[in-house]
Amino acid sequence: MARPIRFNAFQMNTPSHQSPGLWTHPRSSSERYLTPGYWIELAQLLERGGFDAIFLADVLGVYDVYRKGPDAALRHAVQVPLNDPLALVPLIAHATTRLGIGVTAALTYEHPYTFARRISTLDHLSGGRIGWNIVTGYLDSAARNLGLDRQLGHDERYDLADEYMDVVYKLWERSWDDDAVVRDKDRGVYTDPDRVHPINHHGRYYDVPGFHLSEPSPQRTPFLYQAGASPRGARFAAKHAEATFISGPSKQVIKQGVDAVRAAATAEGRDPDALLVYAQALIVTGATEQAAQARLEEYRLHVDVQAALTLLSGWTGVDFSRHHLDDTIEYIDTDAGRSALASLSAADPRRDWTVREAAEFIGLGGRGPIIVGDAHQVADQLEAWLDETGIDGFNLAFALPLEDMGAVVEHIVPELVRRGRYRADPPGGTLRAQLLSQGPRLAPGHPGSQVDIASPLPAVRAA
Amino acid sequence: MARPIRFNAFQMNTPSHQSPGLWTHPRSSSERYLTPGYWIELAQLLERGGFDAIFLADVLGVYDVYRKGPDAALRHAVQVPLNDPLALVPLIAHATTRLGIGVTAALTYEHPYTFARRISTLDHLSGGRIGWNIVTGYLDSAARNLGLDRQLGHDERYDLADEYMDVVYKLWERSWDDDAVVRDKDRGVYTDPDRVHPINHHGRYYDVPGFHLSEPSPQRTPFLYQAGASPRGARFAAKHAEATFISGPSKQVIKQGVDAVRAAATAEGRDPDALLVYAQALIVTGATEQAAQARLEEYRLHVDVQAALTLLSGWTGVDFSRHHLDDTIEYIDTDAGRSALASLSAADPRRDWTVREAAEFIGLGGRGPIIVGDAHQVADQLEAWLDETGIDGFNLAFALPLEDMGAVVEHIVPELVRRGRYRADPPGGTLRAQLLSQGPRLAPGHPGSQVDIASPLPAVRAA
Repeated sequence: MARPIRFNAFQMNTPSHQSPGLWTHPRSSSERYLTPGYWIELAQLLERGGFDAIFLADVLGVYDVYRKGPDAALRHAVQVPLNDPLALVPLIAHATTRLGIGVTAALTYEHPYTFARRISTLDHLSGGRIGWNIVTGYLDSAARNLGLDRQLGHDERYDLADEYMDVVYKLWERSWDDDAVVRDKDRGVYTDPDRVHPINHHGRYYDVPGFHLSEPSPQRTPFLYQAGASPRGARFAAKHAEATFISGPSKQVIKQGVDAVRAAATAEGRDPDALLVYAQALIVTGATEQAAQARLEEYRLHVDVQAALTLLSGWTGVDFSRHHLDDTIEYIDTDAGRSALASLSAADPRRDWTVREAAEFIGLGGRGPIIVGDAHQVADQLEAWLDETGIDGFNLAFALPLEDMGAVVEHIVPELVRRGRYRADPPGGTLRAQLLSQGPRLAPGHPGSQVDIASPLPAVRAA
Repeated sequence: MARPIRFNAFQMNTPSHQSPGLWTHPRSSSERYLTPGYWIELAQLLERGGFDAIFLADVLGVYDVYRKGPDAALRHAVQVPLNDPLALVPLIAHATTRLGIGVTAALTYEHPYTFARRISTLDHLSGGRIGWNIVTGYLDSAARNLGLDRQLGHDERYDLADEYMDVVYKLWERSWDDDAVVRDKDRGVYTDPDRVHPINHHGRYYDVPGFHLSEPSPQRTPFLYQAGASPRGARFAAKHAEATFISGPSKQVIKQGVDAVRAAATAEGRDPDALLVYAQALIVTGATEQAAQARLEEYRLHVDVQAALTLLSGWTGVDFSRHHLDDTIEYIDTDAGRSALASLSAADPRRDWTVREAAEFIGLGGRGPIIVGDAHQVADQLEAWLDETGIDGFNLAFALPLEDMGAVVEHIVPELVRRGRYRADPPGGTLRAQLLSQGPRLAPGHPGSQVDIASPLPAVRAA
């Protein structure tokens, strides 16, 4: 069949994620993010709909560029308050049997030795359904609260990230042999110490002499997501990521991004088609075109322009409160700007954006397109996006999470199945096996599979 | 009624916790620690039995003093492999409605800004049933893998711990006013920014200028456990802990400990009776005395002396592989030694211990007594321990977790209820409300209630 279309659900442990202001909708119950029931209901819906995964974003900081302070973010619930995404993973894992669970964790903010154990634990508890979105951290407010005066420089941050990956690969992939745990009750041997290896890592940023505390989990290394938009970030993603996220308002922008990321993967010696690319989108649908359009109009009434600009200011580092809403946005040369604003304006030659237009654009579903219509119309557009850009699927934002995901499951999934463009009954197994049809371990060509420990022999020995 | 007897279940996310060797028992299925099903089955059993809490230990390191290496720990599964306890909390919380969940986290190993959010998230998801066992870290192997050449000195560690508590109290107790979150859809105000305060913490070890990322959780500060045995540790516990753990082989040793901890609480200006004290114990029971004794004999067959000495060496810092099993243990003057070995020997004037006796003693249920017999006999002993030592209850270790806890619930709980010494149907609510009959917030006299932020006014304001 033609390439299947993949769905990911883009979520965050916060009242309001990518549709600033929509928490004020009469049918919004955003406060349910505090309850297990919400996450379980959502996860079971996604699993029923054959989604690849639920994907949990995180920032560990506040959007405080707009008006040079956090007031607007607090007032409009722009990704604050924000709870720990990792705590949701065991709940979702236990309430589902197949759904992948992708979780964002910024690696500059936790030591790799403790982080590796945290992830191994979740991979065990979920039967190997954990994905990790590798983020190097981009909000200065987070760095300040962690006692760092400022973030590391952008390129240095990626050097640290490369070493961090080296440490966690060693812990996950090399520290325990597959046959290290024997659980031999007769001999009284739980683990054969000859098959457990200290990683002896002594690097520029980290010293980790010992071995991993967790026994090998189903995937060992979690399924790896990354979304690096800068040249250095794209190279990092091309080296490490098994799936990547991309966002932009038009097929042309997205196609450029997909081509670039696959070229970068090729340059790293990896199979470019083995890298899954999801584009951010909001699907607004219903039983009829009229119902879908009516829903979209109703959503637009609740978009909050100030909240949207708070988000946009945080992404780009530009305080948009100093600009008039009718000003045209110029190309902004910051790291984050390249990934956010540049994709709206300079990279899309067909139009200029005013500040207001940009706010209204990202005000519903963030930086991706809104795909609206009845099942036929939406399916047509999804197929066109997939076939014309080379993406593998969509990272679906929401206005009202349960309603929007529910409408996709009710209307869009059956239509795509009819067209032979959706896996109606996806196979179970680990997340990697489901997404790449291989695994559960990293592919042989992946850098995590090739990591070496300084002195693999002799193993851990008593003096 | 006479003071009720409280039960806590002492567990760890590892195949073998306090009964080294018992994982080899034919009915042991220690590998179930990797599955959600095990933890849910256990938690529901404990809740049915009216336990106060399940309490999850952690060490983040390896017992590598015995024979100067980790071989024995690996071979005999002496608290290794060891997974993250925090991942179990959401599972247990969702599978129960009343049970408390105490979790150990060493504060030297995670930044207070991220840790505070992690705990607030769990307190939200559990409806306020989280307890935190404050540990300052005591295994050198953990410090080495986190890039610290050696642990901080013992007293400096407590200075850092005091500052750490200061930071998390500020985040939990002072950063968000009770009425900060308004969720006013009509006005479009989720949080009133005037009621959210940056904590402006600038200390010797930590700089945290910003505000807490999580909105106030039911308890704000989790219920606080601590078990400091050194003089400095006892002072720390007396200042911060709402419940403490104590262990020793005899009522006399325990009574000394209880008296000391309550005197220290009094010296800190707190109500000494508001501090709950749990003594570690293993209950081995059955339908008859004979059944209980037979079970105990059967357990003894699986105690592993080498594994027990691995644990004892780690606790005391003394490599017992260099001693003959028939050597008498002398008083050992190390920090950990005071809390472990000293309680076996010098502090108990009635007997000396050989190395073998100490190993056999801690080989079943760790450092506490084994209380064996039918329901009557066990209940008699529990009442005597409570009434003669001043403890409030027991932190129950296990040989086979589901069997031992199941036997307590089946035989001991009904007998104690009959005697009016057990709350058959404990009230629900937050953990603090359940255990202290007050709350859900910290008591007014607690230092966490009195913490001040440098500039509480003005609140977070835009420039």
